[in-house]
Amino acid sequence: MLAYEQLTKEELQKELKSLKKEYQKICASDISLDMSRGKPGPEQLDLSMGMFDVFNSHSEIKASDGVDCRNYGVMDGLPEAKQMMADIMDTDPEHVIVYGNASLNVMYDTVARSFTHGVMGATPWCKLDKVKWLCPVPGYDRHFSITEYFGIEMINVPLLADGPDMDMVEKLVSEDASIKGIWCVPKYSNPTGISYSDEVVRRMANLKPAAEDFRIFWDNAYAVHHLYEENEKQDKILDIIKECEKAGNPDMVYEFASTSKITFSGAGVAAIAASNANLSFIREQMTVQTIGFDKINQLRHARFFKNFEGIQNHMMKHAEKMRPKFQAVLSMLEKELKDTGIATWTNPRGGYFISLNIMKGCAKRVVGMCKDAGMVLTGAGATYPYKNDPDDSNIRIAPSYATPEELIEASKVLIVCTKIAAIEKLLEK
Amino acid sequence: MLAYEQLTKEELQKELKSLKKEYQKICASDISLDMSRGKPGPEQLDLSMGMFDVFNSHSEIKASDGVDCRNYGVMDGLPEAKQMMADIMDTDPEHVIVYGNASLNVMYDTVARSFTHGVMGATPWCKLDKVKWLCPVPGYDRHFSITEYFGIEMINVPLLADGPDMDMVEKLVSEDASIKGIWCVPKYSNPTGISYSDEVVRRMANLKPAAEDFRIFWDNAYAVHHLYEENEKQDKILDIIKECEKAGNPDMVYEFASTSKITFSGAGVAAIAASNANLSFIREQMTVQTIGFDKINQLRHARFFKNFEGIQNHMMKHAEKMRPKFQAVLSMLEKELKDTGIATWTNPRGGYFISLNIMKGCAKRVVGMCKDAGMVLTGAGATYPYKNDPDDSNIRIAPSYATPEELIEASKVLIVCTKIAAIEKLLEK
Repeated sequence: MLAYEQLTKEELQKELKSLKKEYQKICASDISLDMSRGKPGPEQLDLSMGMFDVFNSHSEIKASDGVDCRNYGVMDGLPEAKQMMADIMDTDPEHVIVYGNASLNVMYDTVARSFTHGVMGATPWCKLDKVKWLCPVPGYDRHFSITEYFGIEMINVPLLADGPDMDMVEKLVSEDASIKGIWCVPKYSNPTGISYSDEVVRRMANLKPAAEDFRIFWDNAYAVHHLYEENEKQDKILDIIKECEKAGNPDMVYEFASTSKITFSGAGVAAIAASNANLSFIREQMTVQTIGFDKINQLRHARFFKNFEGIQNHMMKHAEKMRPKFQAVLSMLEKELKDTGIATWTNPRGGYFISLNIMKGCAKRVVGMCKDAGMVLTGAGATYPYKNDPDDSNIRIAPSYATPEELIEASKVLIVCTKIAAIEKLLEK
Repeated sequence: MLAYEQLTKEELQKELKSLKKEYQKICASDISLDMSRGKPGPEQLDLSMGMFDVFNSHSEIKASDGVDCRNYGVMDGLPEAKQMMADIMDTDPEHVIVYGNASLNVMYDTVARSFTHGVMGATPWCKLDKVKWLCPVPGYDRHFSITEYFGIEMINVPLLADGPDMDMVEKLVSEDASIKGIWCVPKYSNPTGISYSDEVVRRMANLKPAAEDFRIFWDNAYAVHHLYEENEKQDKILDIIKECEKAGNPDMVYEFASTSKITFSGAGVAAIAASNANLSFIREQMTVQTIGFDKINQLRHARFFKNFEGIQNHMMKHAEKMRPKFQAVLSMLEKELKDTGIATWTNPRGGYFISLNIMKGCAKRVVGMCKDAGMVLTGAGATYPYKNDPDDSNIRIAPSYATPEELIEASKVLIVCTKIAAIEKLLEK
């Protein structure tokens, strides 16, 4: 196959005709496929069914420190739950507060608290004329929804192969005191799957923000979500909390994580990790906000995994289920799109997504065509603030929920639509 | 025994001397008692151990509508969880959004959202110079903590035997547009145990607030928490949502409830009930705030109880455990304090508290003396905004956690201290 750029108008038109026929056939075949959200597949959820055998009606529901988990008390997490979440985030239990069922909620709370009560003594953001935020793009749509909901002005920063464009981040953050935060998914990033290099993490920890209340929102959502068992194929990132300490910026970062894609999505345990000063400030709010989160679920998790090795072994079972799905999509893209020169994509070693960049100005068209054919993709633009991909070129592929067979079918649809849109674009020229 | 007021100075001094001896004996006896917080006793928690047998590793964790509760999805609650919470609140499932583990958190979120985003289109409270709130007193300390945390000015309203002083509520609410809410515990109120009369509920529903964004925060925390099995000994309150509809004020109320004191405290299911317009506005926030709450725990609860009859039967088992505890305290107060004329108290038919009013200016002294003797009571003043009981006379007794035997001992301590403080006060005159 030749690159599309090298084809003549006639060749392109011929190819387009054949592709459209193929597309019509797909539309007529009444498919129903979904590659839109990063939901674990049912066979992944089955891996955690042992969670339901951890306790029965004769169990003693007591934490390691003797606390009866069936009653009120313990604001910020059981000792074993703190240890579990610290292990996942590669930090110490004393840096951890364990929350409820979802890290998104913890991030929302963190922004909301900064809005109403400020950050460790600084002016509450609701009293400021302008609050701005750095958003590495493409990124996670639900991060952008939080900052948009609070009327925060979001600034795009390119996400490169080793992390955000740090030249740009350093410059903006040091010059503009209205910039209060940056969204980061440092490992197996959503959606590109890249992990931040040691240099990027260190530069991040060494930022000199103009705003004293600037915080890095370090969403370590895929900390243990590898696709490969081999050590050398697993990404590793530096511990941001330690790096911030070393840099003399101990309070500059909030780290988030949850077990949502480890055990059960939406029924897991979430946590924040930060410096003692940050945690003290957060606890002041927590004592007003809640009587404490679900300790029974915390204990159930800790007992199920026993220790970090238990989590690591468990994640390898996830990897076994996920790997063929990624490979199904990637092999199709490789086979059908590589030579055309109309698309590039990432080949992640973990996480939940593949990021596909197609010809500029084609993403909306492709997502729309796929939808008409019976296949749901994440909305075009969703990976950018305000759902606005300035290039209209990024598509997030979520291969986790469907079967490998379905993913091959889905990839075919996506590929046909991508080709059609590209040729139409080329013929416009 | 004569009323203390009728005793001569000499008689009082004699009595004081004997009481102080008794107090010293108590102090020397190294007791450790706690009547401070409304925690269920371990034997109450044992009633729900069957919750741990609802699922095992072979169960299908699917809701009545087929939803896999192990995965993401379902923002506002499973159908059966909505039904369960609606039954508890005596409303319809379509008025209900099911949340996470604690209603306090739902109330906090509701105030926080009104602060940052306003109420259904009205100006966000953070943009207002002044926000005020009505607080029936004595009331629940954690309610007051929320409004205090947001810098809301709290106004005391006397809580009478049939509910808040409605003359005062009506007047204040209709005259002052900066009053945005009122805290209510309408049934088995915390701490007095009274329930609102039908007339009070109707007058509440017919309020004509100056502020369009005024809301009644109806914390129906003890909706099914009776102490007696007999129907005629159980308090009933009108459905505030229906009454607000009838009054043409459908949007004026948020109702809250949870299963915290039904199953496991801090590991239950919480909910809000309100009009469709309110719920739509709340859902806009929820889609940003969370991916959904813990559906497995929702399903576990619904399966465990099966239906409302299941909950009612379960609550009768709680009543059996609680009744002797209330009776232990009440019989002691009756025996030792009734004739002295230095204290009054409530005799609730449900809920978690007994409210004791002792001689003015004595509550702090009594709580302090009890503490020195080894017995923890809720801090004096805690039942008032800003922890400031203007009469320094109200003490909240929480009899749920200790055994009846311990409660008799604890009551003795409390009674001795109450008498000492009263006599000292009388001798000052």
